[in-house]
Order: sequence, then structure tokens, then C-alpha cells
Amino acid sequence: LNTFLNNLPTTVFSVMTELAIKHQSVNLGQGFPDDEGPESMKRIVGEASRERHNQYPPTGGIPELRQAVARHSERYVGLPVNWQTETLITVGATEALAAAFLGLVNPGDEVIIFDPQYDSYSAMAVRTGATVVPVPLDANNSWRVPGQALAQAFSPRTKLILVNSPHNPTGAVFHEDDLREIARLCVEHDVIAICDEVYEHQVFGDSKHVSLRAMPEMRERAIRIGSAGKTFSLTGWKVGWVTGPARLIQALGKAHMFVTFTVAANLQLAVAHGLDKESSFYEGLSASLQSKKDYLAGQLQQLGFEILPSAGTYFLVADFSGLAHSDAQEDDVAFAKRLTVEAGVTTIPVSAFYNGKSAPHNLIRFCFCKTDQKLQSACERLQKYF
Amino acid sequence: LNTFLNNLPTTVFSVMTELAIKHQSVNLGQGFPDDEGPESMKRIVGEASRERHNQYPPTGGIPELRQAVARHSERYVGLPVNWQTETLITVGATEALAAAFLGLVNPGDEVIIFDPQYDSYSAMAVRTGATVVPVPLDANNSWRVPGQALAQAFSPRTKLILVNSPHNPTGAVFHEDDLREIARLCVEHDVIAICDEVYEHQVFGDSKHVSLRAMPEMRERAIRIGSAGKTFSLTGWKVGWVTGPARLIQALGKAHMFVTFTVAANLQLAVAHGLDKESSFYEGLSASLQSKKDYLAGQLQQLGFEILPSAGTYFLVADFSGLAHSDAQEDDVAFAKRLTVEAGVTTIPVSAFYNGKSAPHNLIRFCFCKTDQKLQSACERLQKYF
Ligand SMILES: CSCCC(=O)C(=O)O
Ligand SMILES: CSCCC(=O)C(=O)O
Repeated sequence: LNTFLNNLPTTVFSVMTELAIKHQSVNLGQGFPDDEGPESMKRIVGEASRERHNQYPPTGGIPELRQAVARHSERYVGLPVNWQTETLITVGATEALAAAFLGLVNPGDEVIIFDPQYDSYSAMAVRTGATVVPVPLDANNSWRVPGQALAQAFSPRTKLILVNSPHNPTGAVFHEDDLREIARLCVEHDVIAICDEVYEHQVFGDSKHVSLRAMPEMRERAIRIGSAGKTFSLTGWKVGWVTGPARLIQALGKAHMFVTFTVAANLQLAVAHGLDKESSFYEGLSASLQSKKDYLAGQLQQLGFEILPSAGTYFLVADFSGLAHSDAQEDDVAFAKRLTVEAGVTTIPVSAFYNGKSAPHNLIRFCFCKTDQKLQSACERLQKYF
Repeated sequence: LNTFLNNLPTTVFSVMTELAIKHQSVNLGQGFPDDEGPESMKRIVGEASRERHNQYPPTGGIPELRQAVARHSERYVGLPVNWQTETLITVGATEALAAAFLGLVNPGDEVIIFDPQYDSYSAMAVRTGATVVPVPLDANNSWRVPGQALAQAFSPRTKLILVNSPHNPTGAVFHEDDLREIARLCVEHDVIAICDEVYEHQVFGDSKHVSLRAMPEMRERAIRIGSAGKTFSLTGWKVGWVTGPARLIQALGKAHMFVTFTVAANLQLAVAHGLDKESSFYEGLSASLQSKKDYLAGQLQQLGFEILPSAGTYFLVADFSGLAHSDAQEDDVAFAKRLTVEAGVTTIPVSAFYNGKSAPHNLIRFCFCKTDQKLQSACERLQKYF
């Protein structure tokens, strides 16, 4: 059996979800929203099947969706793309990432990935032959990019850098200055950027999502990944997309062809409709999520958690080390398990997101894309417990 | 960019499909049926979405579908499996195969694959670090397994063998004797078998599908792949499943987690319904396909094609070298292109399915899972042309 994959632990999302179910906790762990996407999309998925859209679509995606993705790119990051050569439809952002590593990396290449990081990045990077060079974001400085450490991470063997902004699990939205510095280094070292921007429509307050891929010097060396799951609060649909220069899209397409071949036609039609006709849904996400975030952050602060600064995604990170009840010896994994079992609230320990050795052990991630009632019930349970 | 994948040609299915569209030919190339699956399944996929089955299902699949897959295994190949530990739901058989190679193979392992072969097998085997050892089936002996060549292909480095029966592109249904010999060699050399049995419900005449995985000595060393696309004539749904011993299913699950994470919940619910409640659909496939196959074979024979023996799948292979009009210098690729452009009928050249050096150049594959009208129109065009 493959030694590397089989030695990896089960993904923390499945572990915590199972624990949540077992203990009937309020689950603020895995990131999936309670308020679901547009009814029109749910209707169209059924209609598409009844109207015989049930056989293999083209491997790159149906034209309707590829065109909608191209329009979305132009509208939201100001980047026109050619739908036929510069878009690819995938089985969610996860498959887009897998296809990127399979299609872009050669054994021996180095890949720079910021810590903390979504767990599939390093798993697929290593399984496709790359060496991961983790660069820790600065937890004590609003998760800013550490310029010097980043510059030192680049080497002649660096093939690509993964830039996930808005960032999971921290909620950080990368500063334009930091993105410019990343772009400069990519150009200097001839490196490709994989821009995982699935949370582009979940950005709060004065923060603004800036796409690294849209910077002129990056257009020929970056791909941008989007997600219907995150854009429409339909995480279980598993439809994603990629835009990028034809050369890179073609490389991903070669991998996609052998990994899944194509994406369900009925889902693709519904997502195409959504991107064009339900923009008010995803344009409204930031406002509705922000009030949830503010509520949860306020409650947690009252309990003694310290809330780390963040400006996007479904998540906020809290430092539990100042809590009256907390045991100095207890790390984030033990703390998160105890919260599930004893307080009845599930979160994700942030150390699970670290590939390098620099993991903090005083942070847990809360997901706030839940009904107000569920958030309130979680806070009540925590109040009772602490 | 990844050198291996990027040097591969575009899959022959996409190439011929595009050519077919361009020349408005009758497309008997890529294998997808005209007569679609049960209406109840198309209804349920929409209902499931409206009933809020739109967030991440568990990574291994929803219990309803895993249980239905377990029942299907017991009913059709006599093999009871534990739904929780011995099943996995994937994005079609293609992702099941990708997860198998990613999860089972270490760099340097050898993988035995019969030629001709479906093109994703070798692509993923090589991309995951394995060396492919091709063993040509005997085209002059009804595509039987060549016992001696097979025995010689096994080495101390052999990790697995891929056994696709009923077999694409030849339509061969492996003889029980040949399967017993494969099993004996697997046990002798401690080798795993990946059994791609997606055409298990498309078997004609007296032939009977026998599952290698169901042989007692193989149960702990084989996985069996099935496909909703092929079982329900819904190839565009991209839902597949794997059954196998817990140890191997767990290894595939590790890869699946990082390749796609999970499969659309609404599609899974509809397929679960289909497996249990629409068995008459897939039990009836063999009879309806056989009459199409007999018709097409008869017509092609009258035109001078020699039809190679076959007993399953959507496909039949025809030798065009005896045709009055055929140019002795013309290989199967040129012939298939000429048929599309000049006769208006699209097929697939069989040499595209060879990984080793032994490819014949006198064979093309016809797909017959099409409406009677379309088959008739293809035959009329061929009659007119020849
Ligand atoms: C595929 S499970 C992860 C969902 C998510 O993005 C998260 O919780 O971080
Ligand atoms: C995924 S395209 C291939 C469909 C098929 O199985 C075939 O035509 O051989």
C-alpha cells in the first residue's frame, strides 16, 4: 500500500464530525453552512436530469458553465478569460487542487505552502512527488506573510507556491502588499502560483479580496480556484472551477481527464445558472456572515477567549490559553475533544492545519456559517460549561 | 509542468467525439447510451436537493448508498460485504481507479495491465510511480488470457494486476479458467487485483460474468469497481463504488479524501434508490443490448468487416482489413478518421488502447448502446460509402 498516504491520519474534519455526531454536540467544526443556496439551482438540477442531461459532458466542462465562470472572473477580479482555453470545471476545489499537483509537479520539485494550511495541499503535493516547504504565517501579527522567511523559502527547485486567500483556517485576507511581494518572488524565481480563492465572496468589513492571479505579472503564471460549494452554500455538490493561462489549464486538464474525467452534467447546468442569475445570493454572503461572526466573537470574548484578527471565510480562530478553566498542560487537540465531549460544542484544533514544526497549541477554529439559533445554543452550552 | 502527463496525447474519446461533432457523423465512438436510466432516479436527484441534501456527505459515501452497494455485491456476485468498512463511493469508476493507484502503489512497484486497455489505467499507474507491465490478450484466440506470457509478467516487484471483465474495448468476458489462473498467480506472488467490473450487467448469450474478487482466495486481495453510469445508463452522473477488504478500502479512502473528498449527496441518494428499486432496469440491459449488437454485427459482416468474438460491454471490435475498399497501407487511426469524415460514422481505433508495442492496426471499435434508429442510420451510411 502507498506508504505515505497510509501513514497519514484520517482528516481532522472527519474525526471531529464523527465525534460531534457521537456526542450530539453543536457542530462548529467542519465548514459547511446551514443556510443553503438558491432554490432555483436545486430546481434546475432535477430539471436538467429530466431533460436528459445525463451522459458524459465534455471533459473540460459544459460550455454554459465555462462561459459563466469566465464572466464571473471578469466581473469579480477584473480578469477576462477565454472560456475555451482558460477555464476548467472540476469536482470541487479539492479535485482542482489534486489536478494541479498531478499536472504541474515533477518528482523533486519544491512547493511552498503557508502554515497553517488546508490538509489536502501537502498530502497531494507529497503524493505527486514534491517536497513541501512550509512557511508559517505570523500568528502574532494578524497572520501576515513573513517576508524574510518567504524569500528564504524560494530555491532553484521551487515549482509553485500555494496562496489561499481568504485563508482557511485563520480567516486572514491577504494584504495587497503581501500579495505584491509574493508576485515579485514568483517572477524572480519563475514560480507558478496556485490561488485557492474559494472564499472570495466571504469577506468582512473594510477588507477587500484581491486576487494574486489578477496582478498583471501573474497572469501567465497563476491559476485561480473557485468553488460552487462555497459560492452558493452547497458544499455537497462538489463542483469547482479553475481559471488560468491556457498552458496551465491544459496541464490540469490532462490530470483531470484521468482523475475523474468530467463533472455531473446536471450539477454543472445548475451552477451555470447560479453564477449568472443568482449573484445576489453570493454578493449577500459577506453581510449575513459578518453578523454571525460578530455575534460569536463577542460571546467567546466574554467567556475569556481571545479572538485573533480575521476578515474572511467561514471561520474564526480563538486562543483558549487565557480561559480560567484551562489546564496549562492541555493542547488544542485535547481541548477541542474536551469541548465536544463535556461542553457539547465541536471546533477544530488549529495545530491539525500545520505541516511544519511551528504549530501553536493554544488555538481552536470555530465555524460560524450556522443558523443564529445554533450559534446561540453553542454559546449557551459554553457559558454553562465554563 | 508534469512531464509524463503533459506528453500524453488527449484521450482518444475526446478526440473522436470532437471530430464526430465537427463532421456531424453518427457517433459510435465514446461509450455512452442513448436509452437513459430510470425516471425515478432523475426525479429523486431533484427531490434530494430540494429536501436539503446539499452539504458535504461523509467522505466514504452516504450510508444508504453504501448499504445498497453491499446488497448489490451479495446479490450479483454472491459476496457479502460490510458496508461500513468494505465499501467506498467515488466520482465514477475513473476516480475509483485513480484512488486505487494513488492509495496502493509505491514508486518502483510494477503493475500488470492487459492490452488493449482503457487509457486511464496506465496513465494513473505511471503518474503514481508504478511501472506498467503490459500483457497482450490474444486477439487471434478470442482475446483469451495468454497463460505463459502472464506468468512471466509477474516479478517480485509486482504490486497489482488490473483485471477488467467484461473487457473494454474488446467486449471479451474473461473465462472462469483464465480468472482461476490469474487468482493462482496473485496468491503465489502476493499480488492485489483491481477488478474493473463496470460492465457486469452487460453480458450476452450463454456467457456469464464471474467476479475474480468473489473467488475465495481473492477476497482479501482484490477490490471490485462498479459504476452507476454503466449500471443505469447515466454516464454523466459520475458515481461509482468499490467493494473490497477493509485494509484496501481504507487505503483507497485515504486517496479519495484528498482527490475529491466526497461525491454529490443528491446523486448518491438517487443511485441508492436505483440499486435497490430499479434492478429490473439493469437486469434488462443485457437483453436489449444483445439485439443491438446482433443487428450491428450482422450489418457490418455483410459489408465485409470481420467481427471478433465478444460477449459483453457496449462494444464490438471489427477487423476492416478484408474490406474491398481498404487500403493496405492505412492503419486503424487513419481508417477511423476517414470513416468519420467521409462515411459519417465515428468509431474508435483499437490501437489507441495499447500501452505495449503489440498493437494491431486493423481493428476499430463500434459502440452499439445507441437507438435502433441511430444504428440503422450508421449502417446505411456505411453501405452507401462502401
Ligand atoms: C472537505 S472538509 C473541509 C471543509 C472545510 O473547508 C473546512 O472545514 O476547513
Ligand atoms: C470516459 S470516456 C470513455 C467511455 C468509455 O468507457 C469508452 O468509450 O471506452
